[in-house]
Formats: sequence, C-alpha cells, structure tokens
Amino acid sequence: MAHGYTGKILRVDLTEGKISIEEPDEKLYRSCLGGSALALHYLLRELKPGADPLGPENLLVFAPSILNGTPAPGCSRFTVAAKSPLTGGFGEAEAGGWWGPELKLAGFDAIIFTGRAPRPVYLFVHDGDASLRDAASIWGKDTGEAQAAIRHELGDERIRVAQIGPAGEKLVRYACVLNELKHSNGRTGMGAVMGSKNLRAIAVRGTQKPNLFDPERVEEVRKQIRANYHQTPGDMHDLGTSGGVPFLDSRGILPTRNFRQGSFEAARQISGQTMADTILTNRGTCYACYIACKREVKTGEPYNVDPIYGGPEYETIASLGSLCGVGDLAAIAKGNELCNRYGLDTISVGTTIAFAMEAFEAGYLSPADTDGIDLRFGNADAMLKMIEMIAQRRGIGDLLAEGALRAARKMGNGAEALVLHCKGQEFPMHEPRGKRSLAIGYALSPTGACHMEADHDTDFETPGGPGFDAVEPLGITEPVSALDMGPAKMRLFYNAQQIWNLYNCIGLCDFVGTPIGPMTLSMLVDYTSAVTGWNTSLYELLKVGERSQNMARLFNIREGFTAADDNLPPRMFQPLENGALKGVAIDREAFEAARRLYYEMAGWDPETGVPTRGKLAELDLLWAV
Amino acid sequence: MAHGYTGKILRVDLTEGKISIEEPDEKLYRSCLGGSALALHYLLRELKPGADPLGPENLLVFAPSILNGTPAPGCSRFTVAAKSPLTGGFGEAEAGGWWGPELKLAGFDAIIFTGRAPRPVYLFVHDGDASLRDAASIWGKDTGEAQAAIRHELGDERIRVAQIGPAGEKLVRYACVLNELKHSNGRTGMGAVMGSKNLRAIAVRGTQKPNLFDPERVEEVRKQIRANYHQTPGDMHDLGTSGGVPFLDSRGILPTRNFRQGSFEAARQISGQTMADTILTNRGTCYACYIACKREVKTGEPYNVDPIYGGPEYETIASLGSLCGVGDLAAIAKGNELCNRYGLDTISVGTTIAFAMEAFEAGYLSPADTDGIDLRFGNADAMLKMIEMIAQRRGIGDLLAEGALRAARKMGNGAEALVLHCKGQEFPMHEPRGKRSLAIGYALSPTGACHMEADHDTDFETPGGPGFDAVEPLGITEPVSALDMGPAKMRLFYNAQQIWNLYNCIGLCDFVGTPIGPMTLSMLVDYTSAVTGWNTSLYELLKVGERSQNMARLFNIREGFTAADDNLPPRMFQPLENGALKGVAIDREAFEAARRLYYEMAGWDPETGVPTRGKLAELDLLWAV
Repeated sequence: MAHGYTGKILRVDLTEGKISIEEPDEKLYRSCLGGSALALHYLLRELKPGADPLGPENLLVFAPSILNGTPAPGCSRFTVAAKSPLTGGFGEAEAGGWWGPELKLAGFDAIIFTGRAPRPVYLFVHDGDASLRDAASIWGKDTGEAQAAIRHELGDERIRVAQIGPAGEKLVRYACVLNELKHSNGRTGMGAVMGSKNLRAIAVRGTQKPNLFDPERVEEVRKQIRANYHQTPGDMHDLGTSGGVPFLDSRGILPTRNFRQGSFEAARQISGQTMADTILTNRGTCYACYIACKREVKTGEPYNVDPIYGGPEYETIASLGSLCGVGDLAAIAKGNELCNRYGLDTISVGTTIAFAMEAFEAGYLSPADTDGIDLRFGNADAMLKMIEMIAQRRGIGDLLAEGALRAARKMGNGAEALVLHCKGQEFPMHEPRGKRSLAIGYALSPTGACHMEADHDTDFETPGGPGFDAVEPLGITEPVSALDMGPAKMRLFYNAQQIWNLYNCIGLCDFVGTPIGPMTLSMLVDYTSAVTGWNTSLYELLKVGERSQNMARLFNIREGFTAADDNLPPRMFQPLENGALKGVAIDREAFEAARRLYYEMAGWDPETGVPTRGKLAELDLLWAV
Repeated sequence: MAHGYTGKILRVDLTEGKISIEEPDEKLYRSCLGGSALALHYLLRELKPGADPLGPENLLVFAPSILNGTPAPGCSRFTVAAKSPLTGGFGEAEAGGWWGPELKLAGFDAIIFTGRAPRPVYLFVHDGDASLRDAASIWGKDTGEAQAAIRHELGDERIRVAQIGPAGEKLVRYACVLNELKHSNGRTGMGAVMGSKNLRAIAVRGTQKPNLFDPERVEEVRKQIRANYHQTPGDMHDLGTSGGVPFLDSRGILPTRNFRQGSFEAARQISGQTMADTILTNRGTCYACYIACKREVKTGEPYNVDPIYGGPEYETIASLGSLCGVGDLAAIAKGNELCNRYGLDTISVGTTIAFAMEAFEAGYLSPADTDGIDLRFGNADAMLKMIEMIAQRRGIGDLLAEGALRAARKMGNGAEALVLHCKGQEFPMHEPRGKRSLAIGYALSPTGACHMEADHDTDFETPGGPGFDAVEPLGITEPVSALDMGPAKMRLFYNAQQIWNLYNCIGLCDFVGTPIGPMTLSMLVDYTSAVTGWNTSLYELLKVGERSQNMARLFNIREGFTAADDNLPPRMFQPLENGALKGVAIDREAFEAARRLYYEMAGWDPETGVPTRGKLAELDLLWAV
C-alpha cells in the first residue's frame, strides 16, 4: 500500500512540558482512520488499567481523522478520548466545528497529552510547531472571555480554540470540551480530564493545504455530494436538530419529566419551528458544510442570551426542556448559553437536574439541601440556577457535579432507581421504550448511554425512510417496527451500528453521511480512496468501526466492566405514564435475550460479552489482549 | 428495493413428469444471488435430513446466478447441488462454459429436480418452456455421442447440453456433470445424483436478452473490465491453468505420488508450456470471456486424443500426472478425454487411482485384484485402464468407483491412512503442507477437500502479488508466509474466503475476478448494481457468501457432521519426502489451534463448530435452524 498517506502525531508531556512529534506507519491510519479507533490505539497501549481518570496518569487524546480538513462537507468531526471520570471506562466524545480540520491543516493527525502541568497552561499549535503557554490569566474565566483572550494574546482572530470552562477546571464529571464556544465534545467528562491536567485550551492555527492523493477525484466526489444535496434538501437547515420535537411528542417518545413521560404538553413551544419563528438569528455550520444545522439565538429580558454561545440543539432542548418539564424556549436557550459558557455537557446536566427534580418531589431532597430553591419539574429558574451551582460546585451543585448516579448513591434509600443512566453516564434524549434498538444501544455503548450508536428505529419502519436507505447497501431490505426487539431488529441495529462506529472513526457527521445526508456510503468509499490513495471498500471501512468498538470493549473489560454493566436503569422496565406509548415498558426477558443475541452477533461470548479470540484475530487486535 | 430483478425457477418432478414454474420474491435473489446460496435455500427447506443421496428423495438443483448471461466476461459459472453421494453432506460443484448463461437466456434462474424418472429422460428447456423427453436411445452412450444425438433430435446445433456420461449412469460416486463435453461440475458426485434420477441431460436453448436494469452502465463497467485486462495480461491465456506447474514443483508443492512427494522429476514435461509447445491445437473459452484459459489438444498414436473433449486443466495434469507418477502429457490428455467421455471428476479419479497405486505397491492390492494390471506409480497405461474400469464399474473399478475412502475401508488393515480426503472427498492438487490456509480450507470446506475455498497462500506472500491485491480492499495490508498457520494467516484466509464464497454464489470466475483477473471487487459491485438496480455494496455481497457458507454448514450439521469431520488425513501430519519442502509436515496442535480460531472468526462455537444463533440472526438465517 505504497500510497503515501502520512501524518504526524503530537505528543505533549504536561508534567515535563516536553513536546515531541511522531510519524507512525501508514498502517495505523488505515486500520484506525482516526477518531475513536486512533485514540483507543494509544489508550490500550499506553494507559495502565486502574488509572485514576483525574490523575496525571490518564492519557488524553485529541484525534481528528484522515478526512478532517478535506473539502467535502461533514468531515469535520474529531474525537476527544481518555479514561472517563464519569463512567470509569472508555471516555470519548466527538465534536464538529472547525477545530479538527484546523489541526489537520496545522500538520497533525492527533495530539496525545500525558501527565499534569504544574500550573495552568494552554497549548498553541501552529503549522507544524507547538508550544505550551501560561494560562494563569484565563483560568477561571468563562469560555467566551478565554477565547477572546487567547486570540488577543496570540494576535490572530482566526485561531481555533478547543477549551474547557470553569466546570472543567472544577472537575465536574460531565464537563465538556468546546470549540468556537458552541461545538461540544460533550460526553463522558473529557473536560474534567483536561481540567485535572491543568490544560485549559488548545489553540490551533493551520494554513497548510490538505494532503490529497487524487485532488481531481476528490473534487469530483465533492461535486457528486453537492449535487445529491440539491436533490434531497432536508429540514436540518431550516429547523435544525429540534425540528422533530413535535413528531417525537406525537409518537410518545419525547423524554419528559425524567423519562416518566413520553409526551410534553409544551412540546410545540420548544420546537425547532418555534425557535425559527422567535429567537433564531442565524444558522451556524461546521467546516466546509452547507447544511448549516447549527442555531444562533438571541433573547432579551429576562434571559439576555448571548449569541456567541450558539443556540440549543435538540438534545439540549429536551434535556433542559421537556425532561425538566420546562416549556420556555428562552429559558432553555439561556441554559444552553450557561452550559457553553461554563463548559458543561448539556445532556448530562439536563438529565442530572431532572433526576434532582424528581428526587426533590419525592422527598430525597428538601429545600434545606437546595439553598431554598423549589427544585420542581417546570421551574425554569431552578433549572438555570442548578446549572450555575453545578458549574461552580456550589451547594447541592457540588453533589450533582459528580453525576446523577453518584449523587443518588449519596442520597441513598433507593434514589438510584430514579437515575436514568448506563454505566454511570446519563441518558441522552431518546426513549428506548419507544425505539428499542436504543435499549441495546444504550446498554452496550462503551461510553455509557449514548445515542450515537446507530440510527434510531423510527427511521427504520418505512422502506424508503432515511434509516432504511442507510442500511440497504448492507443487505437489510425489510423494515422493522420501532417497538420490535427481536432478531430482525438486532440484525438491523447491528448493521446500522457498523456505520455509526465507522463515522466515529472517520469523523463523518451523520447529517452529511447516510442516512439523511447527501453523501452515500459509496461516495464515502470513493472519497476516502481519493483522499488516501487506498484501494479500500465499504467492507474494510466498516471493519474499522468494528475494530474501534471491540477496542473500546477491551478497554472497559480491563477496567473491570462485565456483562452486568450492559444494563438499563429500572425505569425502562416500567410503563410510560402518558402519550402515545402510555403503559409501554421494556420486557426484561426480551431485553436480556436481545443482549445475548447481540453478543453473539458481535463475536462476543454470549455469557460474558468478552470478544472471542477469533473475533479479535479477525480484526487484527490480538495485540490488545 | 423496488428495482425489479425478477426471475423464474423451473420445478421438475421427475417421478410424476410434472413441470411447473415459480416466481420467487426479489429478496431471494438479493439474499442469495444464485449458485450455492440459491441451491442451499431450497435444499435446507425441502430436503429431509438423512435422505439417501441416490434415492428419489434427493433434491437436485441447477443454479446460475443473477449475472449469468450478462455481457461481462467470467460471469458464466453455475452450480449443481444436491446431497452428495460421495460425502453424505452438501454436494456442490460449479462449472463455467455456456450452459448457465444459456439457461438464463431461456428465462430461468434455476431448475429444481425432485423424484426419479421411471425411465431415462432428458429435459429440454427452450425460451420459457420445458419438456421431458425420452433418453432411452442415448442412455449408455459416450457424452460426445449423446450431445450430437440430442442436438440432432432437436434440430438445433446451438443447443447447450449439460449431461452425465456412462459413469453417472452407473452411479460412480464422483461422476460429474459436463457441458460442451469439457466444462465440468466436477466434484461431490453430482453426476451420480443425476444418474440416480434417470436424468441423462438438460438441453437448453435461450434466445432472450439478459434483463439489465441499466444497460448503459452495464456497458460502461464491461468496458472498464476490458480496459483493465489490456493492462494486466496474464499467463492464463497463453499457458492455461497448468502454466504454473514448474513453479509449484520448484516450491515443493506439486502433489506427487499420492502426496508423498512435493516435487516431480517430470514436472516440465507436463507443464502448460510443454502443452503449448506440443499437443495444443486451440484455446477454448466460456461465454463472453476473452481470457480463454481452456485448452484443446490433439494427439496421434498411441492415444489419439479426440479434441472435442478439450484438454487437461492443471488439476487433471497433476491428478492423472504427477500424483500417479505419470510424466507423459499425451497419456494425461487421453485420461482427460476418457474422464470427459465417461463423465468423471478428473480430480477424484486421479486421487483415487494414486491411492490405489500406493495401496498396490504396499500390498493392499495384488495383481489378482487388478485383473493383472501392474498398478504402480508411473504406469500410464494402468492409469488409463483404471479410468475405464471405474467408469464401467468393471473389476477393481467397481470398488474404486465408490471413492478412495470407501475402497480403503473395504481393504481394511489401515489402508485408510493412504487416502487423501476430507469428509470422504478426495484431495485436489494443492499441497496443504506448503500452503497452510489450504489445511484449514480443505478441512472446513462443506463439500470435503476443495481448492476453491480461497486464493492460495503463495499469492499472499508478496505485497503486490495477485492474492494480496485481492484482499487489500478488505483491509489486509500485510503479507503472510505460505507456511504460516497462525492468527494472521487465519485472518487472511477468512477474508479471502469471503471473496471466494461470494464467487460461488454470484457465478464469477476467479480468473476474471480478483485476484488475477481484470474485474476488481469494486467493478463487481458496480456491475451487480447496474445489472440488478440494487443499492448494494461489497459488504452486502460478501455477506451473501458468508450466508452461503453458513447454510452449507447447517446442512452438514443436519446430516450428522461434527467438528471431528473438519479434519485432515494422516499424511498431512507426516513429512514430505522430497523437494523444497522435504521433511515438512503440519503440526497437529497448530492445526487444531487454527481451526478453533477459525471457528470463532466465523461466529461458530469454538468447540462444536456450530454457528451461533447470533451469527445466524445476523445473516437472516434463523429460519434454517
């Protein structure tokens, strides 16, 4: 494969302040592509099991992909990965935006941080060079102030900054990493890992051209994608990710009041349409992408939302909105601003606050615990105050900053039953009781409950529907009901998951790729080949995703996770209280049968869920055992 | 998937003389493509376990593929399948030539025979019609005479005839099916199954056009293949399949004297080059193919080879030549003519005769047993006489017509140790001790020892070598030594096997497809999509191959096969006696470890080799349990 995809890895030893550059074999890029697989390659080789996620021994990897920075849309996503302080297992989160491509154009395919800086620093990467700089003056500042200060100090307004906010500094276990103040590597507490390393930010400026093997072919495929987009315009541009709120509500799968309900009386008030009609000021986007699904919003009193922090995505709309019983879009937008200002994962924040609200209503918490705040569902101001208190670890916020599961365990008396989580990570805003592949997806995700494991079942119900288009090239030609959890659903989920696993390595956004985007799987293969020169195929690319998934599984096994951790919280086995699916619950036996079947499909032991030696050999992963 | 690949299946109840036509769902074609998978679909559903392979209850399927009859080269291969009278398990053999395309152009995607005709018949299929006709006058005739008689009777010289010869009529357990007198569905005794049904021939004439979804795109891809062939001309046209004899000899892997040796002193005398220099009269080919790897030969006294029966392939050159110690190319060509005249699988014939020669030399047989024939290695006339005696079940031929394993068991006293077989089917002409993936390939093949399970290791040793090119798009980027049998080799074999399994369903010749042919895997996907209109991918197509393999596994399990049957004969664990690999043997522990690893790779139980429920669910095969 003498095709010449080459790249550089930046190593930063924060303890010693030493920086070095490595040039790995092409095989590494071909077998990992980037993102989660590339990060896991290093985590498995270099991080000792049992390490303290918030100790200097944790390894923190920022990994774009072979496609980041190339001209096609949607290829801007990069991974931040480490051992998670939230779950104790594999921690990983992707973000789009501009930072990943910028790093590539600065000459690097990844940055690996080890150790802990003696005092706050930030890293500046600029066209093949990198240096650590003092961050004392920005430590403690909001993300907006910090970004401005860094750009000012370095004298370049076009510098892209990935950073944590005060929440990351304070080691909130679900603190995020943000770029451009609004693109978030949200989940699994990667911001806390940065904070624990005294690493406030990574400022990047790259002016190099992307290294394209066949620039003409790249341009050809880029044009095909563009032409395909004109043929299939979607709501994503017009209404953003929250365009579907009314649909979810009508199906009874809009997570409401800590997942007790599936329908929210104020659903229309918090929808993408309402946003477009009221507070929307602009549509934001990521590097090279014309879909522009991002929102920018502005409000006056009482919330005065600052537009630099962007507008709420669907996940935020639901987690701070319906899940907390809050129907005021401006309040939700303020909550989103606060999360981005402080550097918090809006999903875990919302699910944790919703848990606290239920705990409050159920008497696990009293006003004495909450500084007198009436922490009930529907109290928008309470929701906003909780965000501030969590970010600052003030009062009850210090407890909730540990994540809903740890907080519940401290409360005792069975409060844990009110926590919607898998492996300690809070649920995202998709209802497994109404989208059954999510039941398996959440339970099995190596990072804890995660909605990016596969496309969601409602898309798979109709031939010609978007999810259906996604898996058809893999040989799935028949629709399956969203409520099905039998072998046909597991087959569909398993195949869809192959695609999503790939996306998390190759850095592709699922609004640009299959199912709803203009870049078909066959275009993705052509494009990858044009960029790298590799004689590749969809088969090989999907195997990279599977490799990544198995590496993550091995990582968690090393950390002591077992099949018992591939589980769902009690609420999923209890009936929904309202909406179109009122009374519907997941059957535990059916869930366990599905999980067992999935294990076998994945090439894992049906009892223990441990990958077989044969599966690992097939994926060239025996080195990782 | 409303794309419109439609097809008809012809059903022939030989007992009742009834003919009917079915039009299955498109899903059947998409999930099977044709060939072995399509045949297995019917065998698993309709054949009861434990059936007598030579009884009327056996099901006999002739299955071309979705590509047969379309304009690209190499897509002419079709499958004949049934329960095998040689192995008692899944019986299947593919042949190229002209018959498969002709059946497609006559309007049919498969023919399924059940029952037994009260007296000899042949089937005539002509543009959507089919009728059974009396075969009394051709019963007992040589294949050449029979073909001429059928064409004469039907008044059309362009009729394509797939038929058995006298050996099939006499139920020789390795009788073959032939089309055009020289393209052989050779293995597993499908000719005996035809004979047992009193079905002598299937004469086909089709004048319809192939059903192409996108004729322009079909033509485009066809031209790409052609252009690629001009760039990569091979020996296959010039020297045919036996061009590599000197190479194999130099590597010590030319099967010689019943696999005791790996080098033959007369190797050059039986090579493709020698053939081209001496007896070659013409290069034959299959439907739409310009590679023309087939040979036509003519000799004078003493053998007077009739050119209508074609010339020997490599398998025949080695099985009747080096394996029997025979270095006379004209004698081998005569043996080939006799096998085609009588309808015998040249591989099993040669391996059976070589076994008999060793048994004779070792004293298991005496001249009294052989009608005085001095059945020693190197006796060309003895080899030729044995062919005749086997075909006619005369003298010792009657015993040998049962196959080498059954014959050895009758001899007793350990003669079985001299038989080179897996599951009762005789070895083809490739040496597992020197090409280690064959050790697993032979042992695991559902049809018994078979060389069409994957490309052969020697091709995988060098990056840029042909086998290497084959698997690179699947993500295998590093060469592995032919003598390696560790995890890297199993990974390589497993991946290569996916490709070969696919070829056996889609009817593609491996001299036209990857590795050595001009049709890359990506062209194959494009071509399949252009022919059918399916939004498919290499992933889906390879899964069809895997589906077929698992269906065959299930078939054998139903028939009582266990992991103990996935074995090699004793000789493979004994050292080669001469040549470059003198002293080399397979290590039993290494073999068993490789087998176990392979089971897990395949998604089978590591102890029993039974496909897991999860693997079957992934392949949509739970119906077959």
